[in-house]
Amino acid sequence: MRLATIRTATGTRAVRVDDSVAVETGDADVRALLEHPDWAQRAAAAAGPSHPLAELDYAPLVPSPEKIICAGLNYRDHVLEMGNELPEYPTLFAKYAPALVGAYDDVVLPAVSEQVDWECELTVVIGSPVRHADDAQAAAAIAGYTVMNDVSVRDYQRRTPEFLQGKTFEKSTPLGPWLVTPDELPAGGWRITTELDGETVQSSTTDQLVFGAVDLVRYLSAIITLNPGDIIATGTPGGVGAARTPQRWLADGTVMVTTVEGVGRLRNVCRKETIPS
Amino acid sequence: MRLATIRTATGTRAVRVDDSVAVETGDADVRALLEHPDWAQRAAAAAGPSHPLAELDYAPLVPSPEKIICAGLNYRDHVLEMGNELPEYPTLFAKYAPALVGAYDDVVLPAVSEQVDWECELTVVIGSPVRHADDAQAAAAIAGYTVMNDVSVRDYQRRTPEFLQGKTFEKSTPLGPWLVTPDELPAGGWRITTELDGETVQSSTTDQLVFGAVDLVRYLSAIITLNPGDIIATGTPGGVGAARTPQRWLADGTVMVTTVEGVGRLRNVCRKETIPS
Repeated sequence: MRLATIRTATGTRAVRVDDSVAVETGDADVRALLEHPDWAQRAAAAAGPSHPLAELDYAPLVPSPEKIICAGLNYRDHVLEMGNELPEYPTLFAKYAPALVGAYDDVVLPAVSEQVDWECELTVVIGSPVRHADDAQAAAAIAGYTVMNDVSVRDYQRRTPEFLQGKTFEKSTPLGPWLVTPDELPAGGWRITTELDGETVQSSTTDQLVFGAVDLVRYLSAIITLNPGDIIATGTPGGVGAARTPQRWLADGTVMVTTVEGVGRLRNVCRKETIPS
Repeated sequence: MRLATIRTATGTRAVRVDDSVAVETGDADVRALLEHPDWAQRAAAAAGPSHPLAELDYAPLVPSPEKIICAGLNYRDHVLEMGNELPEYPTLFAKYAPALVGAYDDVVLPAVSEQVDWECELTVVIGSPVRHADDAQAAAAIAGYTVMNDVSVRDYQRRTPEFLQGKTFEKSTPLGPWLVTPDELPAGGWRITTELDGETVQSSTTDQLVFGAVDLVRYLSAIITLNPGDIIATGTPGGVGAARTPQRWLADGTVMVTTVEGVGRLRNVCRKETIPS
């Protein structure tokens, strides 16, 4: 089952995305849907107004999550190729909700930076409250998987050791288009890529993750309660612009395509911000 | 004017805190109140059910903010006494809402750590949406000031360079008891202290801030829209437990009092977590 949040003339709606139509579940967005303990049955049984797929306007999958948690330095091939040791603990940082955009929205390149970079990420969506989980409880708390591009403003990210300020620029981060429930996905090792204007710049597989989805949910749940609609981005493989020689950055007009095989695909045009005077 | 969120038998309520009673504004919490563009008039005119001050049960001032943004390394005396140079940019990191507790609630010391530390902080509450602000716009977006103790789990904070995981443990962070509007406060230089079991362990004044409230709002608004109810903790002065010889940590039963002169006072008993089996 695939679930999404779409924009309509009267606000956002959670939908079940079938092969040719999307059917409203009666909830304002995917977070509101997931807050029903029986969300899976509710979504499967939904028979509300339907929308042809070609006409959907995707909002961020979860427009206002309680938490957007991001892991860094989490792809084995990338860590080792950089000459680093595999980490003992996940590196974790945050984004805030106004950073999010929909799967096909423009990504805003902020006026204050010329160093905006791409990071394709397999992303977990939490489906039920979970705290002090073991592996089985962590797995059971995962509603499904989606795609994020953790677009990063590198000069701000590096102004201090704390990444946050480079990771949460307004309308920088596409999330979606939908979540796919785990039962519809093959066992791991999904191809993950970023393409810029048709050129593949990142390509790996998710079996290279140091801390996988279940590991991250279990680890985080020892710290804080994860709640329905929470977003956990699992980190990006090699191939980012900052690590290239010469370095390469997103530019006005760049078409950025972010794909996790079997999960979903984002297509975003980068647009340089103009600040209203 | 002072505004708070209190718990009642039928859920939380925003209140105006007068000298002897608190008067409900008709909103579920302070964030919902601040989302009214005319919140100041609305709160001043409120004449809902009232509660004797002695009977108030304070919730976290904003139970579910869109953003909790924390500044670090931001007290001049502390930076210089540590032999560091004053920073060019603020160090910024996040917390998530389930980390918050009310002004007089217990603070939970997590079972997984023996290194829990205190950090008294003057804290800003945003009252209107603000983006790309100049100083005047930044000042106008501040609804008022409150008190936070940015309780920090140092071993988790230092597991990686990113502070987040040590800063957002469940029910670790008291916030409140109220916000005080700027018109009720004297010009800066407010005394800020932490006391543990009656012993003063931190004491400074807010004129030692490297980046003040207006600076932080202006800086952050270049990155992202700040929205009503957003929380910005401005950092802590010297005197934390991790910087002492020997180091000192919060213990089960410690009474922690956090005060910003003229703004408010938190009193929290620390309680070691017991994980249900």
